Amino acid sequence: MIRPVYWYDDTVVMIDQKALPARESLVVCHDYTDVAAAIRDMTVRGAPAIGIAAAMGVALGFLKHGGESPGNEEITLERIRKELAATRPTAVNLFWALERMNNCFKECRNDGFEAIAKNLINEAQRILDEDIDANRRMGRVGCNLVPPGGAVLTHCNAGALATGGYGTALGVIRAAHEAGRHPRVFADETRPLLQGARLTAWEMVREGIPVTVITDSMAGYFMARGDIDLVIVGADRIAANGDTANKIGTYTLALLARAHGIPFYVAAPRSTIDVDTASGVNIPIEERDPDEVLRVAGIETAARGAAARNPSFDVTPAELISAIITENGLIEPPLDRGIGGLFAAHTKSGETE
Amino acid sequence: MIRPVYWYDDTVVMIDQKALPARESLVVCHDYTDVAAAIRDMTVRGAPAIGIAAAMGVALGFLKHGGESPGNEEITLERIRKELAATRPTAVNLFWALERMNNCFKECRNDGFEAIAKNLINEAQRILDEDIDANRRMGRVGCNLVPPGGAVLTHCNAGALATGGYGTALGVIRAAHEAGRHPRVFADETRPLLQGARLTAWEMVREGIPVTVITDSMAGYFMARGDIDLVIVGADRIAANGDTANKIGTYTLALLARAHGIPFYVAAPRSTIDVDTASGVNIPIEERDPDEVLRVAGIETAARGAAARNPSFDVTPAELISAIITENGLIEPPLDRGIGGLFAAHTKSGETE
Repeated sequence: MIRPVYWYDDTVVMIDQKALPARESLVVCHDYTDVAAAIRDMTVRGAPAIGIAAAMGVALGFLKHGGESPGNEEITLERIRKELAATRPTAVNLFWALERMNNCFKECRNDGFEAIAKNLINEAQRILDEDIDANRRMGRVGCNLVPPGGAVLTHCNAGALATGGYGTALGVIRAAHEAGRHPRVFADETRPLLQGARLTAWEMVREGIPVTVITDSMAGYFMARGDIDLVIVGADRIAANGDTANKIGTYTLALLARAHGIPFYVAAPRSTIDVDTASGVNIPIEERDPDEVLRVAGIETAARGAAARNPSFDVTPAELISAIITENGLIEPPLDRGIGGLFAAHTKSGETE
Repeated sequence: MIRPVYWYDDTVVMIDQKALPARESLVVCHDYTDVAAAIRDMTVRGAPAIGIAAAMGVALGFLKHGGESPGNEEITLERIRKELAATRPTAVNLFWALERMNNCFKECRNDGFEAIAKNLINEAQRILDEDIDANRRMGRVGCNLVPPGGAVLTHCNAGALATGGYGTALGVIRAAHEAGRHPRVFADETRPLLQGARLTAWEMVREGIPVTVITDSMAGYFMARGDIDLVIVGADRIAANGDTANKIGTYTLALLARAHGIPFYVAAPRSTIDVDTASGVNIPIEERDPDEVLRVAGIETAARGAAARNPSFDVTPAELISAIITENGLIEPPLDRGIGGLFAAHTKSGETE
């Protein structure tokens, strides 16, 4: 099993996703600042994995610094959370995980350093375990949407590497594969950082699922030929009305899918749904270094003197989404009502919000 | 002025477009087989430039081999044409230019080797000169479509490098720039071979026209924000009904433009219009080596074991095209009628078909 982030011997260990697929190497974080740097430079990426890494970063930071100044645990924790919160703005799982770690702290703040640290480590581990469990449940919910032998187009990497270890969009594809439905995957390469060609293809090859890499510009061509049966992508943040921020290019795929009558699904855990964000216009979109666009794999490719823009995400309006696949079932249009219902039901039944 | 292909001292000289922008170097072709190889490996690319190169290849081949076997000039010429015709299937300018060279040969076939060779060289030069002239006329036709200070999105490279030396889509942008309309260019990088980032950006930087490189997946994002005023692209073949084959990704841009109410123009000389091809389904689409997708700038980027597909072109249906900018004026919808009218008028008036 692929484990992109895990706790080991009072460190946070991550697969270095920047080095894949050429080199499979691990990065060991000894303090929360290492974790923050790893999120920022995309050693770890993918909304759920960022959330898990941040939770473990909080636990690690508290373990290293929480005992330095007894009585000031709250200040220490706030400093740690602030640094982690400032890494990347779009994926809401980051803020959701930090909030959950803070709630955990509040419940045990008077129990002394060792008990607090232990609770925080356990809570971070719980976030990881729950994420894998949610992915597997999403897989069961979504796998019947894949027709036998069907061709699924996906974008970026919403796989084991982007989560606790099974995947959202790729989790659904894995589940369809495990159910003997023989899915075939078209993977958009996903410029600028090529997560599709590098990471999604790597996961699918390991899994024995047939995968064909295409450039981001080819999706329309294959849809027009009837070569794509459905699209499944992950999400970085889903607003209360169902508008979905995901890797740049997702919006274009959704429009293309609509134009060709192809279903377009978003697979995401509830932790990616942000009911405090009313609609897509309220989602902050990270813009990264233009050099990522002017270079490929570190090599300067564009003409000198040219500018570049590098928004990392775009927003797909709710009306282009056929359904959202969550661990609690399929949310079908109208998405705003489905999302409202899901959160109301789970608040009432006493589950963690 | 940028001169991608020219005749010099009984050779055909080309800018090596594979090496740009890192290195500005020239390739000297000493025989038609060198020209065929240069077209095939995309040392020279862009529909009109391919046509010019092929015409010069015929002249060069005849110059080198036409005198080898007196009386067999026609057989020699056919061998040369066949090799050049087999290089790339989609751009119709290639076949148009070979046909024109053959017509030139037919008119002087009995005049002896030296006269034939001279005529063929002159005809190839005429094709080049006429192309530059057509580009400038297209520029005058199209430049008023660019609003003052307007942002033009373009795809691949339909510039000086793709033509005799001024450009189709970029020719219109150049003309708008020369007319003081201050256009700003968004250049799709255009994977897999990055003609946008490498070549379009290079041309615009040289020209002093502000250019911003984006990945192919970002066009929808900037359109949704209102940052793009119009789209202008080139063409590799326009069918009689107006369906247009152009670099892979063009169809997606046209759909995006329609969804956002943005005009979508094709700029192409009459030599790109193929009235013998009824519609887009009849246009052969070249599929190139999958390695171009699995690698970037020669470096292996995708996971080993993954397959790839690499169609070089897609077809934009006529109904998504706001107008075709030609050297004979704007062809507006319905495009089939406009194309029919243009060719009927020029056949009647005795111009070369």
